[in-house]
Amino acid sequence: MSENQDTQKSFLETVKFDDRGLVPAIVQDHETGKVLMMAWMNLESLKMTLEKKKACYWSRSRNKLWLKGESSGNMQDVHDIMIDCDGDTLLLKVSQKGGACHVGYHSCFYRKTTDGEQMEICDTLMFDPEEVYGKKS
Amino acid sequence: MSENQDTQKSFLETVKFDDRGLVPAIVQDHETGKVLMMAWMNLESLKMTLEKKKACYWSRSRNKLWLKGESSGNMQDVHDIMIDCDGDTLLLKVSQKGGACHVGYHSCFYRKTTDGEQMEICDTLMFDPEEVYGKKS
Repeated sequence: MSENQDTQKSFLETVKFDDRGLVPAIVQDHETGKVLMMAWMNLESLKMTLEKKKACYWSRSRNKLWLKGESSGNMQDVHDIMIDCDGDTLLLKVSQKGGACHVGYHSCFYRKTTDGEQMEICDTLMFDPEEVYGKKS
Repeated sequence: MSENQDTQKSFLETVKFDDRGLVPAIVQDHETGKVLMMAWMNLESLKMTLEKKKACYWSRSRNKLWLKGESSGNMQDVHDIMIDCDGDTLLLKVSQKGGACHVGYHSCFYRKTTDGEQMEICDTLMFDPEEVYGKKS
């Protein structure tokens, strides 16, 4: 077993950030196991998540730290953080307040396909994005 | 709701591959909800997955198509494929034969930290990698 696959190194030393300094974080409801979203973290947002126990990401579109729920109020309380064998993907077990998805659904994975062509909605709408984020001008 | 967030376009048209032509795929046990791994797909591996209903990825380390389980026998039968709001992450619901992780665990996420420093093993060893893949020379 290589050094990156065991538990000898510290957690932060084990995380492998990519060439942009980011690592993907899968977010899962800690009680139901439902996968809610995937987002990206840099070292700063990971440290903030560990410190505050609230999920904090790096927004690639806005190029800034993103405390999940800072606009919508839909914060994520972090219960556990897991890391994969290669150290290059994280899994957060959270309690999600409201919906995780900016479109208004509970999960960002609100569409599924079985035939590879058609898609259908497979999740519950939790809020109206225009009410939460304001109307787009 | 933008075009990329609804169900009007076809599934394959909705998938947004990154600048390497890849999209991350989260893999979840379809019965227990346990997150097993994350891997990457290109268009070819996604089409093969849809066609065969067996998970097929793009191996970034070997730079080739990777039918999951082709070496270990630990195939993944694909029940559903979901796509997130931005179209840039997939979620596969699968039946996993044996362990998903090449280290021998059921899930690649076999280590967790709660304090951000120490890590502990939180999963079950399913097989001995040396027996399955052969000894490393």
